[in-house]
Amino acid sequence: MTNGTLYAVGVGPGDPELLTLKAARILGRADVVFTAASPKNDHSHALDIARAHLAPGAAVERLEFPMTRDRAVLTAAWEAAARRVREVLASGRDAAFLTLGDPMTYSTFGYLLRTLRRLAPDARVEAVPGVTSYQAAAAATLSPLCEAEENLTIVSGIADEEQLAAALAGADNAVVLKAYRNLPAIRRVLARLDRGTRVVAVSRLGMADEALWTGLDAVPEKLPYFSLLLVLREREENGPDGP
Amino acid sequence: MTNGTLYAVGVGPGDPELLTLKAARILGRADVVFTAASPKNDHSHALDIARAHLAPGAAVERLEFPMTRDRAVLTAAWEAAARRVREVLASGRDAAFLTLGDPMTYSTFGYLLRTLRRLAPDARVEAVPGVTSYQAAAAATLSPLCEAEENLTIVSGIADEEQLAAALAGADNAVVLKAYRNLPAIRRVLARLDRGTRVVAVSRLGMADEALWTGLDAVPEKLPYFSLLLVLREREENGPDGP
Repeated sequence: MTNGTLYAVGVGPGDPELLTLKAARILGRADVVFTAASPKNDHSHALDIARAHLAPGAAVERLEFPMTRDRAVLTAAWEAAARRVREVLASGRDAAFLTLGDPMTYSTFGYLLRTLRRLAPDARVEAVPGVTSYQAAAAATLSPLCEAEENLTIVSGIADEEQLAAALAGADNAVVLKAYRNLPAIRRVLARLDRGTRVVAVSRLGMADEALWTGLDAVPEKLPYFSLLLVLREREENGPDGP
Repeated sequence: MTNGTLYAVGVGPGDPELLTLKAARILGRADVVFTAASPKNDHSHALDIARAHLAPGAAVERLEFPMTRDRAVLTAAWEAAARRVREVLASGRDAAFLTLGDPMTYSTFGYLLRTLRRLAPDARVEAVPGVTSYQAAAAATLSPLCEAEENLTIVSGIADEEQLAAALAGADNAVVLKAYRNLPAIRRVLARLDRGTRVVAVSRLGMADEALWTGLDAVPEKLPYFSLLLVLREREENGPDGP
């Protein structure tokens, strides 16, 4: 039996002002705030954003997960994390699990949710959506992501070249997240698309060393961790079929 | 010469609490607030959400645009809207253009932006991203949209059957916005995909008559205006390759 509620809180893309009013309110009442951490990456940008909104007595706890593809190790890590969450909820306390961006978009929250559902089927869980990095990049560069009957495909640079090519074959517009991974493969796939598209690379948006490049040829050989590509149609003034 | 700034403000998917802190701040300082209206649809949900945050003296103005595919009519309407925005900016006032959801995601803002760029190339324009309807639907149903190397494709029901089929052929996960349009064609395309996917239909999320259906067979023949489909992979507890 658990009495508390777990809130998966999207804290937005990095700019502390892109937090929602709801996220701010939920963070202000959480008894325990969980961050996801790995041995290689123990700094939580999400916590930096959330901190100003936390209640004075809130406890902040790291949930450890290793960066590995070893299923047994992963299963054990998520099981330990879900047990700890269950323990907090069982004590009647509310908890917030922080995610950068949106908790339903390439977040670790899904793994925690499924494990918790197995260990504590009755646990109350709510998610608070947040603005994603690619929406912030589109806004910062005034680049509409999709209009009228166009589609938009979002892929991750951790996919391999074949997966990327298949995903982008039917895409009018695309976002490539984690573009620092597999950048040579991403370049080859985009070069083959050969459409009237505009490529904008955005790196470390909103941070002191933010950088922007327009055109695939202008993008450097290597990109830092927080980098994404927008691959967007050139549009006429009133669009293919009007507003 | 224009001295004011035009802010394209995403007010989020409908829940007034899913507005960002930045949107609230910008709305609180805007001298003029523009809403997009058509003769058939003169009620602005975006204004309902924004109203609590407007400065006491803020002027609210409708920018009219007709629901037509007649290019000459559309061009004239956007030209009139952009001229009015230019006039406000030239007087040194700041203006906010409201959009439900996000201003870069299937918003009319792109058309206004391109017309304004032509009429007033020096106009200062900024966009404030917002949470989209499909992110809110994913959060409300605790349905992760994409994980690890999976992709996500967003399409609009205003696309025809061939466009939908092409867009969804390589999609691991999909969102169908405006699912009230072309629902029979959407059904046929999804039925042909024949993957281990879970379909969730969400209608009028956050409103008094909100409705949810799970499974394509459970979705009724007709859906109301504010309806979307989530078409998502079934996932194992720790995902295809772990977190």
